[in-house]
Amino acid sequence: MVKTRLDLARVQAARQAIDPIFLDSPLYPCAGLADGLGCTVSLKLETVNPVRSFKARGTEIIASRLAAAGRRAVVCASAGNLGQALAWSGRGRGLDVTVVASRLAPAVKLDRIRALGAELVLVDGDYDVACEQAAVISRERGIRRIEDSVDIETCEGAATIGLELVSGSARFDAVLVALGTGALAGGVGYAVKELAPEVEVICVQPQGAPAMTLSWHEKRVITTDSTDTIADGVAGRVPNPDALADILVVADDAVLVSERSITEAMRILLDHAGLVVEPSAALGIAAILEDRDRFAGKHVATILCGSNVDMDAYHRWVGTVPAAGALVDG
Amino acid sequence: MVKTRLDLARVQAARQAIDPIFLDSPLYPCAGLADGLGCTVSLKLETVNPVRSFKARGTEIIASRLAAAGRRAVVCASAGNLGQALAWSGRGRGLDVTVVASRLAPAVKLDRIRALGAELVLVDGDYDVACEQAAVISRERGIRRIEDSVDIETCEGAATIGLELVSGSARFDAVLVALGTGALAGGVGYAVKELAPEVEVICVQPQGAPAMTLSWHEKRVITTDSTDTIADGVAGRVPNPDALADILVVADDAVLVSERSITEAMRILLDHAGLVVEPSAALGIAAILEDRDRFAGKHVATILCGSNVDMDAYHRWVGTVPAAGALVDG
Repeated sequence: MVKTRLDLARVQAARQAIDPIFLDSPLYPCAGLADGLGCTVSLKLETVNPVRSFKARGTEIIASRLAAAGRRAVVCASAGNLGQALAWSGRGRGLDVTVVASRLAPAVKLDRIRALGAELVLVDGDYDVACEQAAVISRERGIRRIEDSVDIETCEGAATIGLELVSGSARFDAVLVALGTGALAGGVGYAVKELAPEVEVICVQPQGAPAMTLSWHEKRVITTDSTDTIADGVAGRVPNPDALADILVVADDAVLVSERSITEAMRILLDHAGLVVEPSAALGIAAILEDRDRFAGKHVATILCGSNVDMDAYHRWVGTVPAAGALVDG
Repeated sequence: MVKTRLDLARVQAARQAIDPIFLDSPLYPCAGLADGLGCTVSLKLETVNPVRSFKARGTEIIASRLAAAGRRAVVCASAGNLGQALAWSGRGRGLDVTVVASRLAPAVKLDRIRALGAELVLVDGDYDVACEQAAVISRERGIRRIEDSVDIETCEGAATIGLELVSGSARFDAVLVALGTGALAGGVGYAVKELAPEVEVICVQPQGAPAMTLSWHEKRVITTDSTDTIADGVAGRVPNPDALADILVVADDAVLVSERSITEAMRILLDHAGLVVEPSAALGIAAILEDRDRFAGKHVATILCGSNVDMDAYHRWVGTVPAAGALVDG
């Protein structure tokens, strides 16, 4: 039995709380990727749902439990995707949702949070500053605060992805998973290790935001003073010790990748898989690019965890020059 | 009861023959599309599977029935996607697959057919010329020939998409479906009209390949001398009378769209849904662009039926300038 904060029966039961529109996301070998990467790559698509990220799996669990408990309001800090997902899940259950985010988060994420009816509080600072502000709001208003990777539901939601990864007929040699707060990697890694312990769980983080990876290698919390990466979804400086403890149990490795590899991976996913992804979702492919020998001839799965990206920046990163937007012309 | 060649119980049973990797494809409202298009648009994604089109739903049924009957070989004409799907389905069941296609079909489709181990026969001509050649090969070799929209399994496979469209909680005002040979529209339309007759079924075809649409309006087979469209997947000149008869029963309307609308729709799907699609898959969005008033405030579903597209052409069509491919650099 894999010993983390998670419990298999509880994860399996949590599926019932999640709107089916977020469950059983596509998982398929992408033929267009195999030739260039030298290995079979199966994609787990968490981008093709109403919030275009995996985060709603967790917020569905949270919102349904809060609603069942008669709670009326909730606040979270977010790099953008958690807030959007909590706004989506809360809206249908009569919850007032407040999201605290960096003023520098992608505009598309902030716009979508507002469009879903949440109150958006912007801070002059990064994700960890937003976390501090969310804690203040929680105390002042006396409302529940949701913290990614700390509140167990955020990890349980991610763990349902892991269940799906190992429940099909495909047998993977490795699962490549983005590492940020640790909710995704800890959740997915738990389910994989519990049900298919022979599958390698490899966490991937940008060189420009390495706090959790450094912590994993040192087996203690290491913080950084700043981050410098386009992968806004995983750009944290202050790892949570409980989340780190879980990652230490379930991860076989944690690697860092360059910004160049991230943008190259995004371009490969565009041209060879037909998918726009945000930088955090390209980390798995970036890890293959940086260590082709390690994966040669193997069957790896990677989770495309989100696709909320400002398209002007996207086109710049992947090296395509945008013409005027068609909708603007229309 | 809707009277076409299809039977609801048979369609429901056919799901059992289809590899689950092709079933229950994503269906979700795409928030990024709503603002610009003035209506709620739910996407049914048939692009996120190993062959990147809906065609495998039908070829799975075909191949399993052929294998059960002890057949060893099969031939089909294809615009590219049917052949790829038949190659995929046949490979796992010990069938020798021969695909006849136009020399001018997208290279990515032809390459994939070969990569899947099928024999590829190229003709100097279009899809209808390929159909004639497939008939010759079928006679000469004494092997079964599969014809899109004529062999009922191709329609039954498409009908399973229709089942999924109307089995969820969402209620659509209209379903926009690409019209080519009629297998997709006839299959989807049948299931929709059988189970949710209030939902409008609207077929969409390019102005440059209008044979089936003209036939629908005239209620008789009308052929054209040539086609002129980038939507290679629906570019037929010679409608099949049985397929037309079905479309006459299930379609509420059949409309034609311009090439400019198709490329604009492809660009919108890239920038606002994060999805690369082939031209045929953009027909539904193109129809909205050409008649915004008709769909204003409504909830429409459209099937993104394929994403096998040569990326150089794609970037040219959608107005982005490609940089050197990352995999080529690598």
